[in-house]
Amino acid sequence: MKKSLGRKTIIYPHPVLMVGTYDVNGAPNIMVASWGGICCSDPPCVAISVRESRYTYNSILANKAFTVNIPSVSHIKEVDYAGMYSGSELNKFEKTGLTPVKSDLVKAPYVKEFPLTLICKLLKVVEIGAHTQFIGEIMDTIVDEEMIMASGQLDIEQIKPFIYDSSSRSYYAIGEKLMDAYSSL
Amino acid sequence: MKKSLGRKTIIYPHPVLMVGTYDVNGAPNIMVASWGGICCSDPPCVAISVRESRYTYNSILANKAFTVNIPSVSHIKEVDYAGMYSGSELNKFEKTGLTPVKSDLVKAPYVKEFPLTLICKLLKVVEIGAHTQFIGEIMDTIVDEEMIMASGQLDIEQIKPFIYDSSSRSYYAIGEKLMDAYSSL
Repeated sequence: MKKSLGRKTIIYPHPVLMVGTYDVNGAPNIMVASWGGICCSDPPCVAISVRESRYTYNSILANKAFTVNIPSVSHIKEVDYAGMYSGSELNKFEKTGLTPVKSDLVKAPYVKEFPLTLICKLLKVVEIGAHTQFIGEIMDTIVDEEMIMASGQLDIEQIKPFIYDSSSRSYYAIGEKLMDAYSSL
Repeated sequence: MKKSLGRKTIIYPHPVLMVGTYDVNGAPNIMVASWGGICCSDPPCVAISVRESRYTYNSILANKAFTVNIPSVSHIKEVDYAGMYSGSELNKFEKTGLTPVKSDLVKAPYVKEFPLTLICKLLKVVEIGAHTQFIGEIMDTIVDEEMIMASGQLDIEQIKPFIYDSSSRSYYAIGEKLMDAYSSL
């Protein structure tokens, strides 16, 4: 039997993305976003949704840039902590011990300790309602060298990303490989 | 050591979303999308990225509606199959044995066998480049009753969603619960 839950924002999975910016004073900040993802192949783009009240909102508009950093399970506590506070209250890089690194390409910091980062230049601002979607053109993708397999593919089992379950408000790991895609004839 | 990979569209995780539409002749169709997700709380919205060449593109524009269906691991082969063919070539509901159910709210079918569906009315069309982003206002969320726990939360361990790894072109399961969110003081 199907049951109607009404107008909810539940989807599986939500990613766990850490958005890096400089604030209007040049201080590095991080924001956790679980509403976002790749949205275009050419130009390569990633979208993230941000409320106007968030500290990151004006930082993105001021610098026309942000980074999207994928954390590993080993930093789950730092991510969770960063998701509980605003950059207006405290310096989340300092509090978590994470290291901001200035990108050479855009005016935004990335998180040194996280295995994968998309370096983005703000391409489009889409007003939807309570959330604004910032679409960033991916200028570069940087990865920890040891996450690259001999095949040239990235090793998800080393990257160890995790997901957010918005219904139970908890984080889950990525499990075992199920099958190759494009193999069902 | 960080290594630059260039302008890639790699993120972890990509969701596996099945988009349901009626084509311009009224035939039900499904498209697999791994670029999409929730993008606004009020109005509640979900975004999916679609190339203009995809069969689903004109179907969404014609009916101003689509559904976003979350498959379980038990239907991974049907999902993979649906991702390999176009609705212009064959009826993917018939070929996969999945059942289209007409929504009462919008002119789009949902997938009966999948545990969770977002019923969407087209709200916004965002031209980015090779991909167009369709932003759908979520008019209802429907779920298999047995996926709802006594707490009222959905049970991710029963829903059994899976993710797509675009670098290795394979599907992965969701693993174990890591921790509650908002618990790192």
